[in-house]
Amino acid sequence: MAKKIGVFDSGVGGLTVLKSLVSQLGHYDFVYIGDTARLPYGTKSPETIRAYSVQILNYFAKKELDAIVIACNTASSQIPEKEWNDTPIFNVIEPGAKLALAKTIENRIGVLGTRALVNSNAYERKIRDLSESQNSQPLVFQQACPLFVPLAEEGWIDDPITNLIAYRYVQPLVLQKIDTLILGCTHYPLLRNAIQKACGNTIQLIESGEALALEMKNYFEIMKPSSSEVESPSAGKIEILLTDYSEHLRLLCEQILAPHIVDKIESFSI
Amino acid sequence: MAKKIGVFDSGVGGLTVLKSLVSQLGHYDFVYIGDTARLPYGTKSPETIRAYSVQILNYFAKKELDAIVIACNTASSQIPEKEWNDTPIFNVIEPGAKLALAKTIENRIGVLGTRALVNSNAYERKIRDLSESQNSQPLVFQQACPLFVPLAEEGWIDDPITNLIAYRYVQPLVLQKIDTLILGCTHYPLLRNAIQKACGNTIQLIESGEALALEMKNYFEIMKPSSSEVESPSAGKIEILLTDYSEHLRLLCEQILAPHIVDKIESFSI
Repeated sequence: MAKKIGVFDSGVGGLTVLKSLVSQLGHYDFVYIGDTARLPYGTKSPETIRAYSVQILNYFAKKELDAIVIACNTASSQIPEKEWNDTPIFNVIEPGAKLALAKTIENRIGVLGTRALVNSNAYERKIRDLSESQNSQPLVFQQACPLFVPLAEEGWIDDPITNLIAYRYVQPLVLQKIDTLILGCTHYPLLRNAIQKACGNTIQLIESGEALALEMKNYFEIMKPSSSEVESPSAGKIEILLTDYSEHLRLLCEQILAPHIVDKIESFSI
Repeated sequence: MAKKIGVFDSGVGGLTVLKSLVSQLGHYDFVYIGDTARLPYGTKSPETIRAYSVQILNYFAKKELDAIVIACNTASSQIPEKEWNDTPIFNVIEPGAKLALAKTIENRIGVLGTRALVNSNAYERKIRDLSESQNSQPLVFQQACPLFVPLAEEGWIDDPITNLIAYRYVQPLVLQKIDTLILGCTHYPLLRNAIQKACGNTIQLIESGEALALEMKNYFEIMKPSSSEVESPSAGKIEILLTDYSEHLRLLCEQILAPHIVDKIESFSI
């Protein structure tokens, strides 16, 4: 049987992460949960974010999956666990932090995220943990960007208003002379151009989803898959479950994942 | 015993409506539910908005209240019922529509609201119902403003970026020569100055909360309260229940309701 990976996010933004995963692990099956009935997580309290995430982890844990991916930075910040009922958990914080550390030259890293992510200091703590043995500890500067998700959802992608807002959010980090900037929310890659314009071309932008997909590919390669697995006829299926389902969201899911084909999108109660 | 009124909203925006109610009916007790764990409602499907609202209505119906107020335009648009298990329901759509009809001269009314409110056509239908007997049917022009709530919550109230966004949202309605504009979301009164600037001084802005409070005062006066009720020692208590509670939200509640004193604010599970 093909390996099956569960992926979840507060909404459909995590599909950008799923897309990276499918690119690296296309012969695996994926089941994605978007908690669209309760999104966003990023404005809510740590207790509520964890409670919602645990409900989804418990559902996945019953499904005998090979791995669970938390494709939401905010949810990742409240789930430090490495596994859930024996199923390994991957989140987007650690690969993003690792990649930022690999890229920074001046040891000055910026993080853009939701208010809940910034308040959690999850990236800052992870970056410090990973660089403990280094001589010079990196400096981390954070900025909450509550308007970025609604701007992306409004579709104001290449827009002077979005450029102005990006400039206001990014400027305090530029003044701190960061050379690397983590896009700490799955929606932010959609605003990548505006963010890059606002911070200038010398600052490198980090997308955690891509870093995570490479890390997971390595993990499964180390696990040495059997040849039968790759040839399994059921391999490569993508199933999407949304707690608030609409035709508009179905189309959006298909658009984000294209050219990959979604096998099933349906409403789901948790 | 004092009369007790239940008020609910997806978040704390409905406290602007509660404040108007307390101004008119200050000797009554109020219990307010803010569904902060699942907000916003305005981006979600009609089915989900109704399901969340029904949960709260069922809770209120068990409490032997004298009235229930839906202080959320989006929730109001999905609850056409006039009572719930014998408790009368008031919503913000009808008083707002009535006031707009009373004010418009050219019979051209604009409505600003969430995407869900605009898709429901609730104001347009109510305005047509109320003006059925008139010779000329009013024309209603709607505009969804998904960025207004996050802008208000970000605190960018008197801000050039907010003015630009308000201009973009309002301009299509101005081109339709509206003379009256309904602020169809409890957050929008916070952006009143920016909206007024964007549409010019000749357009009259309508806040549904104030209209509702006057309507409820009339309703309870017709009900002829006994003198004992007004003198009840328990009268005038305000209790706030939040499905996602934080210190930040507690302070915000107190600020919005000031100078009225809140007797209790606490976390609540539904």
